[in-house]
Amino acid sequence: MGIIIKKFGGTSVGTIERIQGVAALVKRYRDQHPEDQIVVVVSAMAGETNRLIELAKSSVAKPPPRELDVLLATGEQVSISLTAMALMDIGIQARSMDAQQARISTDQHHTNAQILDIDTSTLRESLDRGEIPVVAGFQGVDAVGNITTLGRGGSDITAVALGAALSCKACYIYTDVEGVYSTDPRVCKEAKLLERVSHEEMLELASLGAKVLHPRSVYFAMRYQVPLVVLSTFKPGPGTWIVKEEELMEKPVVTGITHRMDEAKITISKLPGGVASLNRLFSLLAEKNVFIDMITQASAPDGAGNLSFTIHEEASDQTLDLVADFARSEGAEGAYLDRNIAKVSVVGAGMRYHSGVAANFFAALASEDIEVQMISTSEIKISVVIPRKYCEMAVRTLHEAFIEFKPVLETEK
Amino acid sequence: MGIIIKKFGGTSVGTIERIQGVAALVKRYRDQHPEDQIVVVVSAMAGETNRLIELAKSSVAKPPPRELDVLLATGEQVSISLTAMALMDIGIQARSMDAQQARISTDQHHTNAQILDIDTSTLRESLDRGEIPVVAGFQGVDAVGNITTLGRGGSDITAVALGAALSCKACYIYTDVEGVYSTDPRVCKEAKLLERVSHEEMLELASLGAKVLHPRSVYFAMRYQVPLVVLSTFKPGPGTWIVKEEELMEKPVVTGITHRMDEAKITISKLPGGVASLNRLFSLLAEKNVFIDMITQASAPDGAGNLSFTIHEEASDQTLDLVADFARSEGAEGAYLDRNIAKVSVVGAGMRYHSGVAANFFAALASEDIEVQMISTSEIKISVVIPRKYCEMAVRTLHEAFIEFKPVLETEK
Repeated sequence: MGIIIKKFGGTSVGTIERIQGVAALVKRYRDQHPEDQIVVVVSAMAGETNRLIELAKSSVAKPPPRELDVLLATGEQVSISLTAMALMDIGIQARSMDAQQARISTDQHHTNAQILDIDTSTLRESLDRGEIPVVAGFQGVDAVGNITTLGRGGSDITAVALGAALSCKACYIYTDVEGVYSTDPRVCKEAKLLERVSHEEMLELASLGAKVLHPRSVYFAMRYQVPLVVLSTFKPGPGTWIVKEEELMEKPVVTGITHRMDEAKITISKLPGGVASLNRLFSLLAEKNVFIDMITQASAPDGAGNLSFTIHEEASDQTLDLVADFARSEGAEGAYLDRNIAKVSVVGAGMRYHSGVAANFFAALASEDIEVQMISTSEIKISVVIPRKYCEMAVRTLHEAFIEFKPVLETEK
Repeated sequence: MGIIIKKFGGTSVGTIERIQGVAALVKRYRDQHPEDQIVVVVSAMAGETNRLIELAKSSVAKPPPRELDVLLATGEQVSISLTAMALMDIGIQARSMDAQQARISTDQHHTNAQILDIDTSTLRESLDRGEIPVVAGFQGVDAVGNITTLGRGGSDITAVALGAALSCKACYIYTDVEGVYSTDPRVCKEAKLLERVSHEEMLELASLGAKVLHPRSVYFAMRYQVPLVVLSTFKPGPGTWIVKEEELMEKPVVTGITHRMDEAKITISKLPGGVASLNRLFSLLAEKNVFIDMITQASAPDGAGNLSFTIHEEASDQTLDLVADFARSEGAEGAYLDRNIAKVSVVGAGMRYHSGVAANFFAALASEDIEVQMISTSEIKISVVIPRKYCEMAVRTLHEAFIEFKPVLETEK
C-alpha cells in the first residue's frame, strides 16, 4: 500500500496510439498492485512544445515570457485530457488536473519557475475516490493566478515534487530509453545499461547531458528522498534505480561518460577588478536568470586575467549583449562568444577513493590530440570543454579507457 | 469614454498574419479613440477546435465531456497568448486571461455550459492599468474549478456576457463576413447587406442558421441591452447594427431568408398517451441535454398521432436510440430518423403588421413543387422543413419573392 508516481515524457505520449499504450501500462500496474494509489504525470506530446515556441516566434521576435507560458501550458493540457480519456476508455476512473487544479504553486519566474508548494488536498480527494489523477507536468500557478512553466524537463520536476509532497513509494520516470547508460549509446555502441546509480552520480550525469532526467528533479529526489526509477515506456525491463550512495553495491571508479553540445562559451579578456568585478558580473547574470555552467579564470601578471564561462546556447546572444556592456563598463578588453564547443565529463562515485583518474583522463584525450579549453572538477567528476567537432571522438576514447578497459588505479584514502 | 468589447472569431485569428492584423486593427481603434477602454475576446484559431475533437475521437469513441472541455479549452488559450503577444509587439500593453483569470463562472454542463456570473474585478484592474485584456472566449470555470466550455459559438456569448457585465458602450463581433445578409450570399447572389436588424429578427436569423452570431449571444444582448455590431475583420465597413425594434427606421415585411442543413428529423409514429406522453418525452430529452428545434404533431382519430421534431444532426444517433426506447415503452408503432432534411425560414419584424406572407410563402414553394414536411410559425417568421436537396432552390425562390420583388401586401392591425 502506497502512492506511486508514473511520469510519461513527450515521446511516450507522442501519438494517440502511444497514449493508449500508456493507459494499458498503467492498467497492468493497477491490476498487479490493486493496493497502490497511482498518480500519472504527463508531458506535452513530442514536438508540441517546439511547435508552440515556433508559432510564437513566427509572430514576435521575443515572445513575452508571461504569454509564452500561457501558450506552452496548452501542450500538457492536451496530454492530460487525452490520457485521462484513454484511461477511462479502458474502465479506469481518471481525472485530468492542470496546475491550478493540482494546486502546484510556483514563484513568478515565467518560463523558468520554481515549485514553492503543492497543496495535495485535491489530489488526495481524487485518490480517495479511487481515481487516477492525471497531472499536467511542467507547469504551475503563481500567487496571483498567472500560469508559469518550469523550463525544459520540468515534467520530471513535477513528478518528483508530487512524489515528495505525497510521500510516494516510488517515482517511475518512463522515457524512450531503457534507463541510464554508461554513455550515449548513439555515440558509443559499447554503452551499457546501469542497474543502479547514486543520486549524486545521477545529478552529475543529468547536469552533464545524459538527457534522461532533469537535474532539478534529481536534486529534488535526493533532497526529499524520493526513490526514482528510470525505465522505458516501450520495452519492459528493470530500468535504472537512483538510490542513496550507501545503497550502491559496488562503487565503480567511473560510472558514466557524458557530453553536451548545447552550450556556448563566453570569454571576457583582460577583466580588471578582481573578485569585486566577478561578483558584479555573476550578480547581473543571476538577476537576468542566466544559468552559468562552468567558470574558469586564468590569472595574469597585471591582475586583469581572462574569464570564461559556459551558458546554454539558446541564451547566448542575449547574454553576450549583456556581458559586452558589462565588459565595457568595467574597462575590460572585450567579450567574445564561441558556440563551437562541447563539454565532456567522466562521473563516478568511486573517484572519491581512487587517484589517477585525472591522469588517465588527459592521457586518453592526448592520445587523440584533443585540445582542452576549460577544465572543472568535483569529487566525483571531471569535465572539460573541447572544440565541438571532437566531442564524439572524446566520448568513445574515454568510454574505452574507463568503462571497457577498467583501468587499474591505485586505491587511496 | 466607455468600454468596448472586440471579439474576433476563428477565421479572424486563423493564422499568425491574421492575428497581427487583429492587433493592428485594435491599435487603430485605440489611436482613434484613446478615451475608450478595450477588451478583446478571441476564439480558437480556425480549424483548431475541430482538430482537437478529431484528436479525441481518434482515441476514444465518446470522449468524456469533462476531459473534452479540458482539451478544447487549449484552443482559445493558444489564441489569447498569441494575440496578447502581437499587441505587445506593436507597443500596446496587453494581458491574456483564461476563464479562470477573467473569473467567468458557469454551471457544470460540460461542453454546453451556461455563464452564471462574471466577477469583473480582475478585468477592471487590468483596464485601469491601461492594459487591453485578451480574454479566452468559449470557456468558463465551474464552482469547483473544472474547466467548462459553452458549446459552439460560445465565444460570441463570452463577448456579449463580458459586454453586459462591464456595461460596455458597444460589442463588436468581427467575423469573416461584412455583416448580416438578407440571405446566404453563397446560395443567392442577390443577397444584400442589412444595415440594421432588431434583436428579435437577429435571434430568428441566428437560430435559423445565418451563422453570423450565436443565438444565445443575441439573446444575452437583447436581455442586457448590449449594443451589438457585426462586421468584417478583413474589409472595412459599417457592418450590421443589432438594435431594439423601436430603433428600426423602416420595418420591412421580410428582412431575411435563412436555411440550415445540419438538422435531422425524428418521427414517432402512432404515439398514444397524449400530452402526458409528450411531457415524458421532452423531459427525457431535456435531461439528456438534447436540443429540440421544431416540433409538429398530426392528430389522428384514435388519439395516437405522429409526432415529428428536429434536432441537431450530430446528436441524431444517440437521440434516436433514446427515442426508440421511449417509443417502445409507450407502445408507439416506431421511431424513425431522417437526415435528408433542410429548414428554410423567412424572418421579418414587419410580418406582425402584414397579412398574406404565408400565402406568398407557400405560393413560392409550390411554384417549384417543393414538398413541405413540417411547418412552424412565430409572429415574425415562417419556417418549413423540406427535403435537403431542395434547400438552395427554396432559398433563391423565397429571396426573389420577398426581398427582390417586395410583394404588395395588405397592411392590417
